[in-house]
Amino acid sequence: MEQLEYLGFAAGFFSMIAFIPQVYKTYKIKSADGISAQTFIIYSISAVLWTTYGFLFNKPAIYITNIVILAISSVQIVLKIKYDRARLAQKQGGCK
Amino acid sequence: MEQLEYLGFAAGFFSMIAFIPQVYKTYKIKSADGISAQTFIIYSISAVLWTTYGFLFNKPAIYITNIVILAISSVQIVLKIKYDRARLAQKQGGCK
Repeated sequence: MEQLEYLGFAAGFFSMIAFIPQVYKTYKIKSADGISAQTFIIYSISAVLWTTYGFLFNKPAIYITNIVILAISSVQIVLKIKYDRARLAQKQGGCK
Repeated sequence: MEQLEYLGFAAGFFSMIAFIPQVYKTYKIKSADGISAQTFIIYSISAVLWTTYGFLFNKPAIYITNIVILAISSVQIVLKIKYDRARLAQKQGGCK
């Protein structure tokens, strides 16, 4: 592995952990109202493409990072669907 | 430029546009309550590191993408500060 690849791992580390506070916040406030679903869908697509790119160029920093990003982004999408549905059900039930 | 680099540009394109719907949503609802500031700060750090990585490995798909990501992420941070401050001022003013 090239030495400079460590820089990629540092960059990848920050990319990987970046969305953990967001997922945690959404989970904590039990609301994803202000979250854009499109953003996380597009972000997941980009993670799939970067993973392929990383494999083809044999850059582990890129593919490892993006596999983790894909996982975290998927959790955010699941939380978005879950909380938006819960809110809709609450509205339809007429409860406050 | 290697042909495979086009895959990187496709991946980069999705990474670049991913956070536009989020910034737009935050701007539209004039609230960044559900947004994690930490996420966008860490995301910006990662963009700086990936830009450096892209330059060192001479991968334009990586550095161009991350310069744009840094710009969009910075806008999201500015909106977060702006709307959170406005909400705080409103609360302190006792208005609803």
